[in-house]
Amino acid sequence: MTQTASLPIRFALLGAGRMGVEHGLALVSLPEVQVVAVADPIEAAARKVARITRASKTYSDPLDAIHDPEVQAVIIVTPTSTHAALIEAAALAGKAIFCEKPVAADLAETERVMRIVEEQGVPFQIGFQRRYDASFVEAKERITAGEVGEIEQFAATGRDPAPPPLEYLKVSGGIFLDQAIHDLDIARFLVGEVKEVLAVGDAKVDPAIAQIGDADTTTVLLTFENGAQGVVQNSRRAVYGYDVRTEVFGSGGKLVMDATPKTPLLRYGGGQGREGVTSDHYHFFMDRFKDAYRAEIAAFVGALTEGRAPTPGTHDALESLRLALACTRSLKEGRSVRVQ
Amino acid sequence: MTQTASLPIRFALLGAGRMGVEHGLALVSLPEVQVVAVADPIEAAARKVARITRASKTYSDPLDAIHDPEVQAVIIVTPTSTHAALIEAAALAGKAIFCEKPVAADLAETERVMRIVEEQGVPFQIGFQRRYDASFVEAKERITAGEVGEIEQFAATGRDPAPPPLEYLKVSGGIFLDQAIHDLDIARFLVGEVKEVLAVGDAKVDPAIAQIGDADTTTVLLTFENGAQGVVQNSRRAVYGYDVRTEVFGSGGKLVMDATPKTPLLRYGGGQGREGVTSDHYHFFMDRFKDAYRAEIAAFVGALTEGRAPTPGTHDALESLRLALACTRSLKEGRSVRVQ
Amino acid sequence: MTQTASLPIRFALLGAGRMGVEHGLALVSLPEVQVVAVADPIEAAARKVARITRASKTYSDPLDAIHDPEVQAVIIVTPTSTHAALIEAAALAGKAIFCEKPVAADLAETERVMRIVEEQGVPFQIGFQRRYDASFVEAKERITAGEVGEIEQFAATGRDPAPPPLEYLKVSGGIFLDQAIHDLDIARFLVGEVKEVLAVGDAKVDPAIAQIGDADTTTVLLTFENGAQGVVQNSRRAVYGYDVRTEVFGSGGKLVMDATPKTPLLRYGGGQGREGVTSDHYHFFMDRFKDAYRAEIAAFVGALTEGRAPTPGTHDALESLRLALACTRSLKEGRSVRVQ
Amino acid sequence: MTQTASLPIRFALLGAGRMGVEHGLALVSLPEVQVVAVADPIEAAARKVARITRASKTYSDPLDAIHDPEVQAVIIVTPTSTHAALIEAAALAGKAIFCEKPVAADLAETERVMRIVEEQGVPFQIGFQRRYDASFVEAKERITAGEVGEIEQFAATGRDPAPPPLEYLKVSGGIFLDQAIHDLDIARFLVGEVKEVLAVGDAKVDPAIAQIGDADTTTVLLTFENGAQGVVQNSRRAVYGYDVRTEVFGSGGKLVMDATPKTPLLRYGGGQGREGVTSDHYHFFMDRFKDAYRAEIAAFVGALTEGRAPTPGTHDALESLRLALACTRSLKEGRSVRVQ
Repeated sequence: MTQTASLPIRFALLGAGRMGVEHGLALVSLPEVQVVAVADPIEAAARKVARITRASKTYSDPLDAIHDPEVQAVIIVTPTSTHAALIEAAALAGKAIFCEKPVAADLAETERVMRIVEEQGVPFQIGFQRRYDASFVEAKERITAGEVGEIEQFAATGRDPAPPPLEYLKVSGGIFLDQAIHDLDIARFLVGEVKEVLAVGDAKVDPAIAQIGDADTTTVLLTFENGAQGVVQNSRRAVYGYDVRTEVFGSGGKLVMDATPKTPLLRYGGGQGREGVTSDHYHFFMDRFKDAYRAEIAAFVGALTEGRAPTPGTHDALESLRLALACTRSLKEGRSVRVQ
Repeated sequence: MTQTASLPIRFALLGAGRMGVEHGLALVSLPEVQVVAVADPIEAAARKVARITRASKTYSDPLDAIHDPEVQAVIIVTPTSTHAALIEAAALAGKAIFCEKPVAADLAETERVMRIVEEQGVPFQIGFQRRYDASFVEAKERITAGEVGEIEQFAATGRDPAPPPLEYLKVSGGIFLDQAIHDLDIARFLVGEVKEVLAVGDAKVDPAIAQIGDADTTTVLLTFENGAQGVVQNSRRAVYGYDVRTEVFGSGGKLVMDATPKTPLLRYGGGQGREGVTSDHYHFFMDRFKDAYRAEIAAFVGALTEGRAPTPGTHDALESLRLALACTRSLKEGRSVRVQ
Repeated sequence: MTQTASLPIRFALLGAGRMGVEHGLALVSLPEVQVVAVADPIEAAARKVARITRASKTYSDPLDAIHDPEVQAVIIVTPTSTHAALIEAAALAGKAIFCEKPVAADLAETERVMRIVEEQGVPFQIGFQRRYDASFVEAKERITAGEVGEIEQFAATGRDPAPPPLEYLKVSGGIFLDQAIHDLDIARFLVGEVKEVLAVGDAKVDPAIAQIGDADTTTVLLTFENGAQGVVQNSRRAVYGYDVRTEVFGSGGKLVMDATPKTPLLRYGGGQGREGVTSDHYHFFMDRFKDAYRAEIAAFVGALTEGRAPTPGTHDALESLRLALACTRSLKEGRSVRVQ
Repeated sequence: MTQTASLPIRFALLGAGRMGVEHGLALVSLPEVQVVAVADPIEAAARKVARITRASKTYSDPLDAIHDPEVQAVIIVTPTSTHAALIEAAALAGKAIFCEKPVAADLAETERVMRIVEEQGVPFQIGFQRRYDASFVEAKERITAGEVGEIEQFAATGRDPAPPPLEYLKVSGGIFLDQAIHDLDIARFLVGEVKEVLAVGDAKVDPAIAQIGDADTTTVLLTFENGAQGVVQNSRRAVYGYDVRTEVFGSGGKLVMDATPKTPLLRYGGGQGREGVTSDHYHFFMDRFKDAYRAEIAAFVGALTEGRAPTPGTHDALESLRLALACTRSLKEGRSVRVQ
């Protein structure tokens, strides 16, 4: 692509699962975008998302979409294990790339592929969507403006309503790479790089998760380069829904990013005639971060149209993975680990 | 249109202003829809929305779009004064119709046009978007399920951040038709028909508003057919933003629909180092009801694809107008008015 | 009493019911106070409160306590029907007087007794405790400081958990004198005098309440002297507890006084494992206004020790009654009533 | 004292500083109590609290009050360094004892004194007032009732508005004994005993605090005996006020104990006419836990009158100290420490 893309930018959407639909809807809402192709081995899924995105072509092999000369940019939402190869192919083909996290579960492979992306000079964005959630965007602005003063403490909680299937967990890279990485990336985004981690954890939700060498309930103590102290708690099961709370505390005050009720409706004594006030809660990440998913795609397209480097890019893809891997090692080895 | 539309349904979007963009984005996110034409006297605006909706044709005259044989359904977001004539033309042309409120500022004209729509048997939906806001949808469900018991009291507040331009106000039909009608329609939606109203009001925000015979700050006492007591307060100016709060109270409890902070971020002592907790507030109606605008268009399309009558339809367009006009008369005459 | 009382001030507590205990606890927490006598026809009750207040004497007849030469000030929490006579006796005996509202259910009698109090020049305070609740105190300060600008709209809700016994209601003076008067007094306190009222209401909770000529569910439209518009809604039954919400809106912003959960504890999915967040709610007025009851007694004692006139005094006792009586007449006569 | 005390129970209040006033007000509100003496080396302070409590005697030496034959029970709110000696003297004199935390900064000394208390069989309660805060009381009940299921994660934050004077800090025993011990005690109260801790911390608020070998900003990772994971974060300085938040998460849900605004008043756009909603925040611990301080004294008196052992007693005094000391050691030695 040239510095500033001529419009519309022609996209291929690689992967037509749940996130393919989400990103397809994001793309089709942007007048600067034309989706020309959707790729998925399941033809019906590819066709469905093609209808949503008004794409005229479908492919069963994502590589064919990457090599379609009409295609200028790709959105990769295929299974995790295919990310690295598709990024590599797209970069070598000179296409702009948005890829869901992670690039790979392996640091060396991630480093190798990110290096290719950088060598090819193609625009690249990794899917840490929380960085585009309005609350984190505003928190970052306020921190940068000095409103929190020197950051002294950080605390994040991330809990899913229920664990994914065991088959998925087996190839997920473990709880830190698969789930906690979002909280760890936000820690880096808001506070800065982490020097050292100490992780504890075990399988409280399902013993089968222990048997595959993973944990479902973890707590990490973080020491940031700038001296701030941090904690991150994760769980694979919260009966009340999807729970993400983040707090940044410093010499100038505190910021708390925590979901309000999903629906702005308070029930007083509803139904049972009991005293008490009840509201609902977010159910799932796509629910809580719906607008953030739209905003990250809009930001990627905005960067392409304006010739800016998209963010978060190769550096953050690598460093947040490095941090998650340090947590994994700390938990395995039962000791503090330098992130370096 | 036949009972169940063959897909995609081919739409024309009449009006390419701010709401035209909004509804265009709603349409393009629906795979069941193909926008074939956008009409607006301002060509650049029409082209911009055509790009957004992937429409291939633009018209300067909305009647040409209505009569385009490809077009099966129309979204009318033109200036209020043109609504009645366009609805009439579209109905006579057999097109499905979604129209922003109001049909007309005049009861007789509204009755005449709604009768034509009914005679022609075309699907019709009026743009009372709050009925598709998640909090009101859930409130309606809970009320219907009996959770609130017998409804005894209703209270609604509706405040805009600032009055619209005087030129707009002169042709707006007055505060009850232009602004309060949304609160009055929700009163009917949640509680039932209103028997009698008593309105007070004057111009506290801008004396020029009094000079054109309108008010900017009003309070209405409602007596519902079912005996419930209601109050509705409106203002054209709230320095803190857009303020919509609705409460339904009954023998079984209370429901409160009030916006949570727009951004789920709490600041403790931010900036000034002061004690205290601050959050933001919604700024404007498009902000607060963004999802409701999407949902009402999706519901209209859903009704078309499934062969159901869309809602709210001709009856609600007429009855909510009748209620707003009773308020206007009550304020003018300084006495209680039967809605009949 | 002289201008500035010599310490401790010697009190008699007239009435040893529930509110007698409350006010007794307030008195005993003040080092400037010595409770010398408690009067109640039920001897066990008098003795119990004497123990609480460390009082050495008990009387069965409150007049004996009033005429006890040791007694300098009296707290009247006897049944409503006795207030006027006891105030009169205490005033004539030169004692400082704190009396629970109302002085009497009758305007002429209230005027007569208040005149005696003024003629005798004894300190007098009426028990509108909300004026000493921290939220209303702060609201008043902010309004006085101009933070709300010109007040344009007022809205108050007052709901009890359940109606009192019918025997009580028969002698209560009706819902406006007995219950709504607190909301009406706060309207006067925060906004100013009321020019005209229109009240609607009926018995939705218990038909027996209609049979005694009273209502249990009412809505009042208020027009203030300064042009502000107001609404007050009351109910004798709220299944979720005690519900007091007050809103003042003006050209500079809005203040909302509404109870937070009684207990600062949020339950997420508790018990049933369901999604959702639950908190508790205040149960009753003594619960919600516990600190205000303490504060009003402390303020009365503070006024005595510093030689200031206590507030709210005879004027507010009279004017808030006048307003409540105007509401009663409006409901009876089905028309607007000038408060004069 | 015999099993069930004859009433009133005669108390001496040892220490007439700020907490002496608080506990004096608590005592005087209880009809079962007679305060007979107040002891403080500052005579004016002793007399002031004697007036508040209606005590007839004052002592300059607390030992004289302990040995006053009229005195049956003592409240010890003298400087920390005197606690152990006074507890010992009171126990040997057979008096019931309520003592502010801590018994001593030293484990051996605490063990020795607690042994004496147990040997003498006198009632003893330690001042962990949070256990009597309504939110923690209810949390404990709900946890015991199984509403949270198996507890899996715990998180507590405790922040003071500003550090105490350096002179105080020098003899305070350090941040874990002086401040964090309240959060650590609540961890034990709600979750159970702690097996191992890892603490990090340094002086971010004031370098002088580092020079006296203490920290002002700390984070502790806790491993509970039952396998739950915990974190506790403390700071000596929060510009927005006094900040205590506690979260218990388990297989059945989550409980969050966090202060609502101190005053139930929301300001919308107040003063500056800006968009946004503001509430206030608790300033200090006596503010936030005012009712808990009253309730712990009432509970102590209730235990005495009913012949029950007060709680928390010698065991909790010792075990919460042991936990705080383990944190201190962990921070000093830079490694995990078993609490044992």
